[in-house]
Amino acid sequence: MPTSPFADVTAVEESAPGRFTAEVSPLWTIAGKPNGGYLLAMLGRAASRVGAHQHVLAASAHYLHSPEPGPVDLVAEVLRAGRSASQVRARLSQAGKPCVQALFTIGLLDPDTKPYWSDGLPAAGEVGRDECVRLPPVGPTGFPVPMMGEIDLRLEPATLGFAAGRPSGRGELRGWLDLMDADAFDPTALLFAVDAFPPATFEIEQTGWVPTLELSVYVRALPVPGPVRILQRAQLIDAQRVDEVCYVWDGTGRLVAQATQLAGIRLG
Amino acid sequence: MPTSPFADVTAVEESAPGRFTAEVSPLWTIAGKPNGGYLLAMLGRAASRVGAHQHVLAASAHYLHSPEPGPVDLVAEVLRAGRSASQVRARLSQAGKPCVQALFTIGLLDPDTKPYWSDGLPAAGEVGRDECVRLPPVGPTGFPVPMMGEIDLRLEPATLGFAAGRPSGRGELRGWLDLMDADAFDPTALLFAVDAFPPATFEIEQTGWVPTLELSVYVRALPVPGPVRILQRAQLIDAQRVDEVCYVWDGTGRLVAQATQLAGIRLG
Repeated sequence: MPTSPFADVTAVEESAPGRFTAEVSPLWTIAGKPNGGYLLAMLGRAASRVGAHQHVLAASAHYLHSPEPGPVDLVAEVLRAGRSASQVRARLSQAGKPCVQALFTIGLLDPDTKPYWSDGLPAAGEVGRDECVRLPPVGPTGFPVPMMGEIDLRLEPATLGFAAGRPSGRGELRGWLDLMDADAFDPTALLFAVDAFPPATFEIEQTGWVPTLELSVYVRALPVPGPVRILQRAQLIDAQRVDEVCYVWDGTGRLVAQATQLAGIRLG
Repeated sequence: MPTSPFADVTAVEESAPGRFTAEVSPLWTIAGKPNGGYLLAMLGRAASRVGAHQHVLAASAHYLHSPEPGPVDLVAEVLRAGRSASQVRARLSQAGKPCVQALFTIGLLDPDTKPYWSDGLPAAGEVGRDECVRLPPVGPTGFPVPMMGEIDLRLEPATLGFAAGRPSGRGELRGWLDLMDADAFDPTALLFAVDAFPPATFEIEQTGWVPTLELSVYVRALPVPGPVRILQRAQLIDAQRVDEVCYVWDGTGRLVAQATQLAGIRLG
């Protein structure tokens, strides 16, 4: 297996059947908290190792407690092994404290398929990557985001109002993501991609941490190598919770992953 | 606890701490298969019984195997009990065979909250319930849908093309749902509401069973009593899988629940 920065930082080592150890990197954090999609990618690696299939097709995670950077333990168990897909439960804990619980459906993404109908998707947008602005490893209010030094995340200027203290009010971020890899995004890296963008609520109103409570991801196709285009959109803020949807397209304009998340927010 | 037809048909009986028995009704089926949201409501009842909180806020389920109508076993365990919310794992099996695995975040929905920002939601629509057409307990190709005799599900005429063999091609269903209850939808009943509509793919092309693989639901508010308005929309059919989103509004036009699901489909 060829190594790459993202493969290294999400690597899990099997210590006993279905039991893994891993190291949460201090670099993949926002204000000291590991990114939720990064943790889900780690869980996805463990889940893919115990199942009879290779690609994560669907993942749902509930976030119980944010681990610190450092060693974590993962457990993965096959709930059902089917012919075309397996269902796997995986969980991540730190020093015995449960941090993330997840369910996975693992199968095989056929590289030769073509979308049959896609009229229900939002438009991918047309602003090129070169016209977008790369986010620095510092958040809009000065908190450290070392993760941005590990990835190449660029936003369309029209969705960058928050960086100048003038959110558009539309609750939408558009742009591009690339890993510091020669490799294409694999299905596990797509589990990270759907949670890589800042909260789309930054384009509504500035707040502190917007912790993910639940994240569900569907991987729809194997992307071509290269950066992916992303749309992250907030839908509703009610009772100090917000839901956001995320769409990820590869360089050919094919939707390769999509997600929905519920997060806590100090607004309203 | 007052009984109602829906409460009765989703009732779970605790046989030991965290262990429940229930009866899958032959009436809540489509072509012999129990509805996925109905099973999730049953799991939600078990999950709400073991946690310290009352309302399901988020639920994610992976469907492994469709149970037959008849007795099922449920197990629910608290993964983490927090001050404002608990996370619970729940599963449903039949004769020892795992059928549905689910994770829940359970908390408290405050009846006095108001939405803070909702500009990212689709329009709820304006067609009244009286202008909609109630679905009969028979599917478009003649298969039995006894569930439709147990609920009052009405579709807008503009999204009923499939019933006459002329799907609109838009992959969208709009209409109203009511339970045969005097009661309002509670958060558990909303877990059913998000999966009550026929597949929105009926308005693309007629197919057989569209089995749910994964269903994630967020309950956003306590609805006022009475019927709820629903929008069910397909986004992408690729590699014989389709994702659908669902929005549920109460009679005041407030979004009370939303969901996304991945399902299998024989197209493409």
